[in-house]
Amino acid sequence: MELSQIYAPVQEDLAKVESQLRSVCQVDFPRLAELLSYILSGGKGIRPALTLLVGKFYRYDIERLVLMATAIELLHTATLVHDDAIDNSSTRRGRPTINYLWGEDRAVLLGDYLFAKAGEFATATGNLRVIMLFSQTLRTISSGELAQTFDAFNREQTRDHYFERISCKTASLFATATESGATLSQAPEASIEILREYGYNLGIAFQIVDDILDFVGTEKEMGKPIGSDLVQGTLTLPAMLLLERYPKDNPVAKLFRNRGMPEAEKQEKIRQAIELVRGSPIVKECFAVAADYSAKACSRLNLLPDSPSCQALKDLADLVINRRK
Amino acid sequence: MELSQIYAPVQEDLAKVESQLRSVCQVDFPRLAELLSYILSGGKGIRPALTLLVGKFYRYDIERLVLMATAIELLHTATLVHDDAIDNSSTRRGRPTINYLWGEDRAVLLGDYLFAKAGEFATATGNLRVIMLFSQTLRTISSGELAQTFDAFNREQTRDHYFERISCKTASLFATATESGATLSQAPEASIEILREYGYNLGIAFQIVDDILDFVGTEKEMGKPIGSDLVQGTLTLPAMLLLERYPKDNPVAKLFRNRGMPEAEKQEKIRQAIELVRGSPIVKECFAVAADYSAKACSRLNLLPDSPSCQALKDLADLVINRRK
Repeated sequence: MELSQIYAPVQEDLAKVESQLRSVCQVDFPRLAELLSYILSGGKGIRPALTLLVGKFYRYDIERLVLMATAIELLHTATLVHDDAIDNSSTRRGRPTINYLWGEDRAVLLGDYLFAKAGEFATATGNLRVIMLFSQTLRTISSGELAQTFDAFNREQTRDHYFERISCKTASLFATATESGATLSQAPEASIEILREYGYNLGIAFQIVDDILDFVGTEKEMGKPIGSDLVQGTLTLPAMLLLERYPKDNPVAKLFRNRGMPEAEKQEKIRQAIELVRGSPIVKECFAVAADYSAKACSRLNLLPDSPSCQALKDLADLVINRRK
Repeated sequence: MELSQIYAPVQEDLAKVESQLRSVCQVDFPRLAELLSYILSGGKGIRPALTLLVGKFYRYDIERLVLMATAIELLHTATLVHDDAIDNSSTRRGRPTINYLWGEDRAVLLGDYLFAKAGEFATATGNLRVIMLFSQTLRTISSGELAQTFDAFNREQTRDHYFERISCKTASLFATATESGATLSQAPEASIEILREYGYNLGIAFQIVDDILDFVGTEKEMGKPIGSDLVQGTLTLPAMLLLERYPKDNPVAKLFRNRGMPEAEKQEKIRQAIELVRGSPIVKECFAVAADYSAKACSRLNLLPDSPSCQALKDLADLVINRRK
């Protein structure tokens, strides 16, 4: 099933989000307009779609849902711009990054600008609960990213570390996308909780698959180089399992132990690690963990009232673990 | 007159802001707690003091004013952390910067964390107008900083450029500090406007003096190297006047024209520029411009009801243009 089919119940609303994003690009400062237009095209749009889909279960005001969905997409984009600047990444979504084209300083400031703009959209909903949720989520994401910098190249990490990190850096925003959609459509607390949990678990599944694809995907499909987590010293689930299963002569262990090794040798270690993971049962095992979270995400959706969104959320949970890009 | 005397009417409230800032440092993540404690000590506190002073003219709820003053200080701190990371500065307030001690990546993420925390404090006021103002201000500041990067090393800038830039990067936050204080104390619209204008003009005066002190101050007083604007290619009012008055053999023109010159030669050009400015009437002239804005700031304060804050705001406007650090 394609994303476009899943998004069918909110297709028109997503077009409104697109239109809001285009309005963000209309600023009286040509250099900034250029940066905004560049960064606000592309993207999977899964997070704003979640807000819109989830909002359809109860009494929604579509304008408010669109404002919040736009805020969510802008917040997500801002974090990507900062991540790329920090990681010195040159490619994202198959295109050069902001930091690569305009320099790291502009990337940092553009990210700040996008945070601000996102905050304005969240505030425009007029709902104090989702406005607070918005800021809390930015805090959680930054905190998770900070933890990642302190954990970098550390081989002594537990799975708890990993899940804590992806919970902060990815699942928190998925959870906020769904919680805010539910809140803005006046869902009862119990339903808000079910939908928040859906978003949270979907986010965990999504990130695990992302981390798998950094080993088994292709640069063309992913729109960025494979093995980039290892380059940054980020220990993801597949790499963690590789360390556990192959304690002897492990390329990840060598790479993390000796950060000063020549670039060519690093590349070779990363190549070896990718090959080892691909040829091992680790991939299947990680997909199974992701599938568990995807199933958990959907486990209580049946308690909600009937809505065309319900099937879409289930299909999305399915797609997230079956995607290859 | 000392700052502490001026702050007398809000001394207890400022202590509450300090206490809120200390609470921000209490996080269950020791490395982050260390970063927060480091960055949230020191600072002049002029912006939160403005919110508190301005709030005293009408019917204020001190808890809300303290929340907003804390938000303002956190927002200001976040922008400094990002500025230092972008400029690669190693010293601020007489101490090594976050980027110098912990790296640029942590500085970017810590700034993001502080933006988020600031947003939470602003949201906690429960006042949608000041929450919106908060996000708009972050947008304005980022936009001004972005303009600064695009204007860097450009000699063809007008004074309009300069005032537009300092309006965005400095005066906007001063204006928000006062507007939010006035709004939260239920001031009538006409008074909010007077107090916002006060903050705005004070901010312009403050930044002009900052730009003068980058030429005539000492590193010890300023807590950062002198001439740092020229290093970044930022054309401030004194440098602009220097270019106009000394069109022949001008060290700023040479520095901006030939960015690839050896480091020692750059330092020499900066030294020459500082010497020229110090020995010229430019300093006096720039102080006079700042004094005009300071006077403008106070020009309508007499229309407000009696309050111990009124004299404090006038004294502050005086101090801003007479400060030497």
